Amino acid sequence: MIVFFATKNPHKIREVESIKPHWIELEKLPDSIPDAPEYGDTFLENALSKALFYSKQLKAPVIADDSGLVIESLKGFPGIFSSRFMEGESYKRKMEKILKMLEGEKNRSAKFICNAVFSDVERGFVISSKGEVTGNIAEGIRGSEGFGYDPIFIPRGFSETFGELKEEIKNSISHRKKAFEKLFSMLRGLI
Amino acid sequence: MIVFFATKNPHKIREVESIKPHWIELEKLPDSIPDAPEYGDTFLENALSKALFYSKQLKAPVIADDSGLVIESLKGFPGIFSSRFMEGESYKRKMEKILKMLEGEKNRSAKFICNAVFSDVERGFVISSKGEVTGNIAEGIRGSEGFGYDPIFIPRGFSETFGELKEEIKNSISHRKKAFEKLFSMLRGLI
Repeated sequence: MIVFFATKNPHKIREVESIKPHWIELEKLPDSIPDAPEYGDTFLENALSKALFYSKQLKAPVIADDSGLVIESLKGFPGIFSSRFMEGESYKRKMEKILKMLEGEKNRSAKFICNAVFSDVERGFVISSKGEVTGNIAEGIRGSEGFGYDPIFIPRGFSETFGELKEEIKNSISHRKKAFEKLFSMLRGLI
Repeated sequence: MIVFFATKNPHKIREVESIKPHWIELEKLPDSIPDAPEYGDTFLENALSKALFYSKQLKAPVIADDSGLVIESLKGFPGIFSSRFMEGESYKRKMEKILKMLEGEKNRSAKFICNAVFSDVERGFVISSKGEVTGNIAEGIRGSEGFGYDPIFIPRGFSETFGELKEEIKNSISHRKKAFEKLFSMLRGLI
């Protein structure tokens, strides 16, 4: 089955390419397509609105995700604002700011959350799943693997950040891995 | 499992009560809850927005549907406008208007479509299904069973309208029956 992946982020594409089963063929969005609006106040709604938007535009099945870093002592911040926080600035700057906000804070608990959605509007069908990875915020920025906030996130059971762990290792335990693996396995039984 | 049903329509509640499996217990919406916004341009989006809205408000699992009559020679009208068309007027008036619009029209093909959604925002989970029943628009208003446009819709294989067929018969072949039966059977395998 050919499925469009609603992202222009090459890291995400590589990550999901490594997760998807052989019976799914991922297709990139056409360059000409406008960006989907993001106006939800949960990861689920944002993932849904992207998947529905592109599925309507392309009249084809689409997968989408929305994901972010949820920091306990910051009441869930940056959460759904993970990419929009300090928009236009580099992730290095964003991470420095987060570390500053956590200065002196003992509770470093955090998790990455991903909501993945499959949508085929023509068939009136949509399904979603959620993946989480728990861990802690590091004291500094470490490593250059991955993307986004990876270099300040230490997954539980590891001493390295997602920025230090090899891509294969991160992609085998990540929130996105869990969400899409569940999504594809549900889909398998339904279509 | 206790699930809220996002409707204040007693006909819909009775219909879905007769479809649901024993392991689902339907709960009515609290009277105090505000109405969900409806701004989608497909049945699927409207059903989703209702289910998500109430699931967020109630922090509980919710089912919702959006449904309507799609008339081929009217390019799908009234479709998602089925209930909003001539808002405030009785369905008798609405049906008279539809019959007038179809005067002299030989193509009476129509279908009822229902999109059903289950959503549990806390778990980041949503799933949908679609049910259709095809048929024809009658030449006049016939019968008083059912609700909405039932008295002008003759399902394929019958000579009576949904307004003339007994409730048990309609509820065994209806678009809502098909959509919710599929939804519950998918859910069964997933939760």
